[in-house]
Amino acid sequence: MPQHSQASTLFPAETLRDFARRVFVKLEIPANDAVQAADVLIASDLRGIDSHGVARLKAYYDMFRHGLINPRPNIRVVRQTPSTATVDGDKGLGLVVGPAANAIAMDKAAAVGTGWVAVRNSNHFGIAGYYPLQALSREMIGWAMTNSNAMVTPLGGAERKLGTNPIAIAFPAEREPPLVVDMATSVVPFGKIEMARRKGESIPVGWGVDGQGNPTTDPDQIVSDGAILPMGSDLLHGGHKGYCLSAMVDMLSAVLSGSDWGPHVVPFAMPRQTGERRHGNGVGHFFGAMRIDAFIEPAEFRARADAWIREMRGARPVPGGSGPLIPGDPERAAEAIRSKEGVPLLPAVVQELRDVAALTGVAFE
Amino acid sequence: MPQHSQASTLFPAETLRDFARRVFVKLEIPANDAVQAADVLIASDLRGIDSHGVARLKAYYDMFRHGLINPRPNIRVVRQTPSTATVDGDKGLGLVVGPAANAIAMDKAAAVGTGWVAVRNSNHFGIAGYYPLQALSREMIGWAMTNSNAMVTPLGGAERKLGTNPIAIAFPAEREPPLVVDMATSVVPFGKIEMARRKGESIPVGWGVDGQGNPTTDPDQIVSDGAILPMGSDLLHGGHKGYCLSAMVDMLSAVLSGSDWGPHVVPFAMPRQTGERRHGNGVGHFFGAMRIDAFIEPAEFRARADAWIREMRGARPVPGGSGPLIPGDPERAAEAIRSKEGVPLLPAVVQELRDVAALTGVAFE
Repeated sequence: MPQHSQASTLFPAETLRDFARRVFVKLEIPANDAVQAADVLIASDLRGIDSHGVARLKAYYDMFRHGLINPRPNIRVVRQTPSTATVDGDKGLGLVVGPAANAIAMDKAAAVGTGWVAVRNSNHFGIAGYYPLQALSREMIGWAMTNSNAMVTPLGGAERKLGTNPIAIAFPAEREPPLVVDMATSVVPFGKIEMARRKGESIPVGWGVDGQGNPTTDPDQIVSDGAILPMGSDLLHGGHKGYCLSAMVDMLSAVLSGSDWGPHVVPFAMPRQTGERRHGNGVGHFFGAMRIDAFIEPAEFRARADAWIREMRGARPVPGGSGPLIPGDPERAAEAIRSKEGVPLLPAVVQELRDVAALTGVAFE
Repeated sequence: MPQHSQASTLFPAETLRDFARRVFVKLEIPANDAVQAADVLIASDLRGIDSHGVARLKAYYDMFRHGLINPRPNIRVVRQTPSTATVDGDKGLGLVVGPAANAIAMDKAAAVGTGWVAVRNSNHFGIAGYYPLQALSREMIGWAMTNSNAMVTPLGGAERKLGTNPIAIAFPAEREPPLVVDMATSVVPFGKIEMARRKGESIPVGWGVDGQGNPTTDPDQIVSDGAILPMGSDLLHGGHKGYCLSAMVDMLSAVLSGSDWGPHVVPFAMPRQTGERRHGNGVGHFFGAMRIDAFIEPAEFRARADAWIREMRGARPVPGGSGPLIPGDPERAAEAIRSKEGVPLLPAVVQELRDVAALTGVAFE
């Protein structure tokens, strides 16, 4: 494919945000929820995680069309203690259920120090990093995890049994930016495999196996019937630990919440796929919030976090390198550029947004 | 060195437990605390984590001798909310402070659903996996983390700034054994580097860098002035994520608790080292406990955990392999053998125990 066909076009974030909001409203989502859902999507585009932003709008549209998303869910607490809740998302949009459940975690933390919320009957909730960022503005440490449809094999296996199951956590600092972790527990997120496939490039050894469990550098083999490896890739480099982390996310998000787990999670809508779909008990999430003043004076914490960040930045760099980054640096750098210059969208994504515009009658561009 | 000099001798676990207990009593630790501390140490030997068991008794002895451990600490809660506490360990033995703080987390969970405890002024607390196992008997999910003296470089750096900072978490099942995660956030724990060095073997690429930040397969270079790499090893394989997890552990265990963090953590006593030592604000830990019935019916959770475990065990194996294990399998297998046949100790470890016996007047063998 000629290179110029891959050239991106820049769109102002506010244009994309407004388009997403209007599409959600057209899909009968209440106005406030549509604003919230668009905010999660655009946060992803701004932070440079292109796979989780408006590039997914068509997939969400398809899920609505197939009746897999309830536009006006009755999101309810089905069980609780002072510091915990289990939330049933009633098949609502993950971009709406997630923020509602996260708010419950923060409210619990405000009352008793910490709050922990397991969620079932949801679906894809956007980038995990969005949620702990909300906690920062309430002087809390935030946590978020989610399971997702199976693309990853447990180490030693040759079969998709786990999602890329991300973990996110954020800590505030004072003069330094916050420390924001947002990571798949697989060696790479699916988006990197998909990107290599589109470009016709090979992938490094250690990213995945083919359908028989042999190492492969061909992204097509992973997409067709292979699997992504857990973080660590092999036993010598801690692949069992990546599998452990993925297990932890699935146990907290799904086994504990009552949602579908492991290979039973329904695939995210794939536009070209037809046939019957089922919802089951949906995708599961797990949110946490911890009030900083429940442990230490917040000013003292932030000063200590500043010192920690400077210490790591100050580490002697590897030869030819510029030294360690701080968790969250790449996303902050992307946001600084994109909020000013716009969000680059690939032609295929622009075409999908035009398709959504045509299907919904919501104007785009 | 001839192979036979490395041959291990088997000791009944109860012999080691009783020796450790009597040594701790001799070091003026109260009787109940000595029983507790010996239990943590022997759990490590039984579970096959040789580096964290009685092989450390001499190092603990040295710390007492240097006045770095307070045998009769006033372990106190310095700040709390219904679901949290910050505990000052008063320089007590980590094997005593850890269990005390973990019990506070479980008591908080019993009261309000979850409990989270950050600890400062402690020192090495044994294997992280010991603590979540305690939660299982109270029908809780248990968590434990700790920082440790710096051996690991942040990714992109060539300088020891972080400990091997482990994470442990355990979930109960019904007919299946519990799922127990206990993992260093570095690509390997220091013990594996040390073991290769003693055997004169090279180590795989991806485990560490020399003092200039170049990849090395020589364990001597890591021990002298190099560093261990975070889990993931390099940017292509998620080394930034291992660094993120290590950061998370240090922020929760140390920045939040008020203990020493990053490179400021005082090294664990090294028998051959002389000169001044300092305690600072000690090692930091972070414990969590979550009542299962705060989220879901415990019987339902355990049945779901059983199904999850069977699903993963049932994954098609890689060619020539026997399929995925479940987190905790290797340690359980070791415990089954060692509780029956005894704990194998290397000659150097046996000699250290004899040294401790001579120094304390506590009989060994």
